Amino acid sequence: MANKIDARNFKGTRDYLPQEMIKRNEMITIIRSVFEKYGFVPLETPAVEYLDILMGKYGEEGDKLIYKLDYKGGSVAGMKYDLTIPLARVMTQHNHLVLPFKRYQIQPVWRADRPQPNQGRYREFYQCDADIVGVNTMIADAEIINMIHQILSQLDIGRFVIRINHRKILSGITAFVGLPKNKEIDLCRGIDKLDKIGREGVLKELSDQGFKEDEIHKIFDILAIEGDIHKVLTELKNIFKNNEIGLQGVIDLENIIEYLKNLGTPLENIKLDLYLARGLDYYTGAIYESSSLDLPHIGSLTGGGRYDHLIQSLGGNDYPAVGTTIGLDRIATVLSQQNKITEKDSLTNVLVTIFDETSVKKSMEICSLLRKNDIKTEIYYEITKMKKQFNYADKKKIPYVVILGPEEMTTQKISIKDMSKGSQEQINQDELITYLNNKLGKNP
Amino acid sequence: MANKIDARNFKGTRDYLPQEMIKRNEMITIIRSVFEKYGFVPLETPAVEYLDILMGKYGEEGDKLIYKLDYKGGSVAGMKYDLTIPLARVMTQHNHLVLPFKRYQIQPVWRADRPQPNQGRYREFYQCDADIVGVNTMIADAEIINMIHQILSQLDIGRFVIRINHRKILSGITAFVGLPKNKEIDLCRGIDKLDKIGREGVLKELSDQGFKEDEIHKIFDILAIEGDIHKVLTELKNIFKNNEIGLQGVIDLENIIEYLKNLGTPLENIKLDLYLARGLDYYTGAIYESSSLDLPHIGSLTGGGRYDHLIQSLGGNDYPAVGTTIGLDRIATVLSQQNKITEKDSLTNVLVTIFDETSVKKSMEICSLLRKNDIKTEIYYEITKMKKQFNYADKKKIPYVVILGPEEMTTQKISIKDMSKGSQEQINQDELITYLNNKLGKNP
Repeated sequence: MANKIDARNFKGTRDYLPQEMIKRNEMITIIRSVFEKYGFVPLETPAVEYLDILMGKYGEEGDKLIYKLDYKGGSVAGMKYDLTIPLARVMTQHNHLVLPFKRYQIQPVWRADRPQPNQGRYREFYQCDADIVGVNTMIADAEIINMIHQILSQLDIGRFVIRINHRKILSGITAFVGLPKNKEIDLCRGIDKLDKIGREGVLKELSDQGFKEDEIHKIFDILAIEGDIHKVLTELKNIFKNNEIGLQGVIDLENIIEYLKNLGTPLENIKLDLYLARGLDYYTGAIYESSSLDLPHIGSLTGGGRYDHLIQSLGGNDYPAVGTTIGLDRIATVLSQQNKITEKDSLTNVLVTIFDETSVKKSMEICSLLRKNDIKTEIYYEITKMKKQFNYADKKKIPYVVILGPEEMTTQKISIKDMSKGSQEQINQDELITYLNNKLGKNP
Repeated sequence: MANKIDARNFKGTRDYLPQEMIKRNEMITIIRSVFEKYGFVPLETPAVEYLDILMGKYGEEGDKLIYKLDYKGGSVAGMKYDLTIPLARVMTQHNHLVLPFKRYQIQPVWRADRPQPNQGRYREFYQCDADIVGVNTMIADAEIINMIHQILSQLDIGRFVIRINHRKILSGITAFVGLPKNKEIDLCRGIDKLDKIGREGVLKELSDQGFKEDEIHKIFDILAIEGDIHKVLTELKNIFKNNEIGLQGVIDLENIIEYLKNLGTPLENIKLDLYLARGLDYYTGAIYESSSLDLPHIGSLTGGGRYDHLIQSLGGNDYPAVGTTIGLDRIATVLSQQNKITEKDSLTNVLVTIFDETSVKKSMEICSLLRKNDIKTEIYYEITKMKKQFNYADKKKIPYVVILGPEEMTTQKISIKDMSKGSQEQINQDELITYLNNKLGKNP
């Protein structure tokens, strides 16, 4: 016999045991159903890509984050670290795809990072993205935001807000203050850290980046505008009256708000937040993030926006694109902390026990009958003490247990134990399905 | 702008474009629902495992098949190449798991193999496994076989057969002929090739392995026994009357057949095939494979059996285990070749067009209304020629198109075009949902 293995996960990765998987599958089922209701279709791409393709987005800096394969004695291929590069590749490679191409993709990605499991940072984690490629009208942006609203509502995550902003408003502010265009990304990265380092921290960071004090004050005066969306947009329009790019951002957001109303999105969940920046440099239009109002410290639950030139900059065709990522792990955390998800080790409704040799046949027949009626059923695999069989149902939290003892075999009855109440009832065999469907809330 | 990427897949891998994914998701939905009806729970494990764990099963020979990560300057970790090793690790690592542990796992695996895509051999492919760990009674074996029957029936793959055999019968034959125990695996590997190299080929191979002519004849006389399962088992019992191991195999199969009947499995789909060997050396009991009777050349659609000491030999605890793998790709091939799956690029039921600026609001409201009523709906994202919008519906095979032109806006009507018939109807707006539900076959 082999020596015992040192059974452990590769550092920074984890098993999804049944309890986690059941929870995750429930969430994904809801999310997929919304994606598909909005006309998105599924896509999956391989784990491994050639390095020249993977390096497109972050270049040398990203190089460190990629797990490379020890293949053909050199660095030829590596594991994908996001779902955007594969999307760019797919759009270029399969040129028969009809535009607009609306795809969702739910797959793991890998980052050769220092893992911090207690902060939810793993080397392998799932991404769940939905993107619309090939459309530059704001109807697409509104659809994505409306869909996020629908997903968070259907997942029942409690009170939430979707904060929106527009990169061209931030460009407009940069221009308004008289700063060169290349300062915009510094500004975005600076204010993006507001949550982490606070207002003073951002002021210091911008100052370190060479922003002058009066510039910073001017910027923060504009960013501080808040209140009713229409009022804020009107104020911005006034500020940007001679500022084409800023004005374009405002008009885009006006259109998006109008379209969101058309789609029936409750505007009380939408907030225009001029501080929202999303540090990545590839966004070109509207940007948005959502978070729980009950558990704001968990951070953003979704994040996305318009990135009209990213696919081209990754070496693909020049397609406008807009999309969002749905943070499965963080949403699961919100649901768990609100006790909205029951932890389950099993999905089984009924355990059929085997009393002794003489009842094996009947027990298996009952098991099969229940399954035919779409009741999730297990049969106990051993002829052993009833106590052991009940114990299994108890540990697995299987709610009902069927017993066919010598008495039931003679009288053509069936005993059913309700494990949560500890009570037991005897019913006629021909009432079994109706009885259990009632108990399981499955009858009309 | 970056140079155009050379958009291509890593050799031996492929994208699952929406058409493939839609098909696969339909299959997986059915398979999962059966697994869960039988009390199996989902499990997922990471792509990357430490090499000392991965090397357990095939040792040095398997080494070549593993993609190793170029990590910490040495061979520390690699990509998993099956779902059995991770199961063995999980059973050892998470010792709170309640036995019997019944898990299903549907995940990709990777093999650093020479890919042969035209023969369906890829470097990345999905495995779909269901196993019961911790049970040594034949009720578990019967459940697996019954479940395979249920899955193939629900997938509607047409006529199929599940062939069964037992390793102890093959051991019994080895002993009956007077060969030493270690010849059994040679015998298994030999007869396993019957499909590929034919009877003469197997005879030659066994002869090359040192089997004598009279031994081979004796073996083939027994293997040739066929017909009604009970009759074959009775004959074998007679042959094995002084052969404990052979007899045990026969008794196990008798029990399995009995249990299969109890579970309502139609025995006409089950065939005892003494030539079935499954070349892998870890099986210890019943073994089974299934294949299409209409398209037998596609090969085995499922394969599995009992492997009571594998988990221990991989360095885990000594758990008996039984399970099967479901060959998703091959089943998809069978369904495609029988035209049982319609190829779809889209799941959308209705496209709402936008006639002009004045109808944007109304069109979006209709789109939202349809989605609220669980009708999968897309809105066209541009205000453009109707022809272009119809063209999109046509290319995506969206069956119904909603039109809100100036006439419909005034009369409070809606025009609906049936894309397959090319016909168009005008209905009242308040009849829209009922009308479409009827068309889509969704009304009671």
